[in-house]
Amino acid sequence: MHLPSGGRLSIAILSFGLTALLSAVEAKASDPLPSWNDGAARKSIVAFVEKVTRPGSPDFVPPAERIATFDNDGCLWAEQPMYFQAFFAFDRVKALASQHPEWKDKEPFASVLRGDMKGALAGGEHGLVEMVMATHAGTTSEEFEQVVTDWITTAKHPTTGKLYSEMVYQPMLELLQYLRDNGFKTFIVSGGGIEFMRPWAERVYGIPPEQVVGSSIQTKFELRDGKPVLVRLPAVNFVDDKEGKPVGIQMHIGRRPIAAFGNSDGDLQMLQWTTAGSGPRFALYVHHDDAAREWAYDRESPVGRLDKGLDEAKANGWTVVSMRNDWKTIFPPSAR
Amino acid sequence: MHLPSGGRLSIAILSFGLTALLSAVEAKASDPLPSWNDGAARKSIVAFVEKVTRPGSPDFVPPAERIATFDNDGCLWAEQPMYFQAFFAFDRVKALASQHPEWKDKEPFASVLRGDMKGALAGGEHGLVEMVMATHAGTTSEEFEQVVTDWITTAKHPTTGKLYSEMVYQPMLELLQYLRDNGFKTFIVSGGGIEFMRPWAERVYGIPPEQVVGSSIQTKFELRDGKPVLVRLPAVNFVDDKEGKPVGIQMHIGRRPIAAFGNSDGDLQMLQWTTAGSGPRFALYVHHDDAAREWAYDRESPVGRLDKGLDEAKANGWTVVSMRNDWKTIFPPSAR
Repeated sequence: MHLPSGGRLSIAILSFGLTALLSAVEAKASDPLPSWNDGAARKSIVAFVEKVTRPGSPDFVPPAERIATFDNDGCLWAEQPMYFQAFFAFDRVKALASQHPEWKDKEPFASVLRGDMKGALAGGEHGLVEMVMATHAGTTSEEFEQVVTDWITTAKHPTTGKLYSEMVYQPMLELLQYLRDNGFKTFIVSGGGIEFMRPWAERVYGIPPEQVVGSSIQTKFELRDGKPVLVRLPAVNFVDDKEGKPVGIQMHIGRRPIAAFGNSDGDLQMLQWTTAGSGPRFALYVHHDDAAREWAYDRESPVGRLDKGLDEAKANGWTVVSMRNDWKTIFPPSAR
Repeated sequence: MHLPSGGRLSIAILSFGLTALLSAVEAKASDPLPSWNDGAARKSIVAFVEKVTRPGSPDFVPPAERIATFDNDGCLWAEQPMYFQAFFAFDRVKALASQHPEWKDKEPFASVLRGDMKGALAGGEHGLVEMVMATHAGTTSEEFEQVVTDWITTAKHPTTGKLYSEMVYQPMLELLQYLRDNGFKTFIVSGGGIEFMRPWAERVYGIPPEQVVGSSIQTKFELRDGKPVLVRLPAVNFVDDKEGKPVGIQMHIGRRPIAAFGNSDGDLQMLQWTTAGSGPRFALYVHHDDAAREWAYDRESPVGRLDKGLDEAKANGWTVVSMRNDWKTIFPPSAR
């Protein structure tokens, strides 16, 4: 083939471009987890994924069975100084206060309206659930989705000033993608509200609504002016925490995960359930030990306590991620 | 390029083979629904799928939102002379009778043990639920999966002598595949037991466990000899029928379907919920009007009654499939 010199140059440029592109592709292929330091945690993840995806390996798992479940609060996004859904509930109380004059004298609403966060949380989980139900109930599923969407795209965290959806963990986003690139189906299994997570889980985590499992209040189908709606009722339907997590997994997924990721004692039963299956299994705890870049807490924390789970992880050889040592960065570099 | 004559012949043969292959591919592409006659029902399905998948069309729906939900009993497989899960429950009563001497004198168990099907069903849905709970409860989720798997691979229908999994509708299998080939995610949304369908839905329908929605009994996580198990409890958790279907859809899928397929009044609210969404929507009823090849029943049938739904379908222009006229075959040609 004869080419004028211009043609040769073009090909040379094209060739250089292709080489650069291929290098970039190779770099990406060789480093699917760029925010992870090359320590034991990262090595254990990669070793597991390579083992279960290698055709002919005795540990090979067919793609349909590559189910991975992730806790949300403290595992995929932060959870301090309290679960972000509590901030959402507080904001809802403030937004709806004019329709509920009785809240002025009724706890925990009164504390929220006074801006007394500690008082607002004094009722513990029970008080929070009451607040969530009082502020969510009566709305339709579509109205609630809109309220959550408005909140997640505008509300800011009180100490960092970031959008809550910017307080997700960059290394975990990479891990989710790495697993999906290797044929895994990724699920959220969280104590948080299922309808609170779904409106943004797809955009932020790449996890579609049908792969979100969480706590829920009851809903009821009815015709309003001839139009079918689902109305949210002030009654708990399911608590997807602790012993509830394996129950929620069975209800929604119907298949035991082969890998589970958590950060607190609330995830312990999910990790037990996952690792008790036959064949290769993987369990991982994110350990919050980075007071400088995030928060440091474990055995004594009122939110996200990791006590019994830390002991079981050690006894069973589960992977424990040190946020301080294993992660190069915590949050995504720029606003999403 | 120069070729010896043998080479030319090889190429001619190869070329012929390729042409034949391409024709086969084209035939398949041009006829994704070979068991459907070319009537209004088939035309409406194809028109809808082409409309929502054509890029640039005002009716284009992104793949993530192409959710299609299917009833099971009477829509994907037969349901006469009674729901197949009732036969399963009867078989369980017989298998467990020696451990329950009290059943000899207690209805509906006594009727089942006498072989009196009519008496066994006299208690209606309530009696059936009681039977299901009495025979399923106490087992672990894994034990139950094994029991269902054993049954579905061996038990035969009393009048046709076929395996129950052979009594699925060939045209609906093609429809499921056609939708999936066009980027739809297919779900079962059935009044039947979720754990009764999951063990075989993937093999028979190509629908994985996490895309099966159904009725359920409660389960409980516990450690048995240090091993985590999920135990089935004798208490109803959720009834996925009528008004329950949109609730189950929201709980499991979290997104409104754009297409829904049913055959009875139990599916009416699912079809209402689906078609009430904005943008292109599709609703279809399978009408059992083929006494020669299957069964003929609608407004007066105790099982799978289609009365109000038939009127609403007419009023709303939903597609109604005549099994007699629209389907070339009912069941798959040979044992699966």
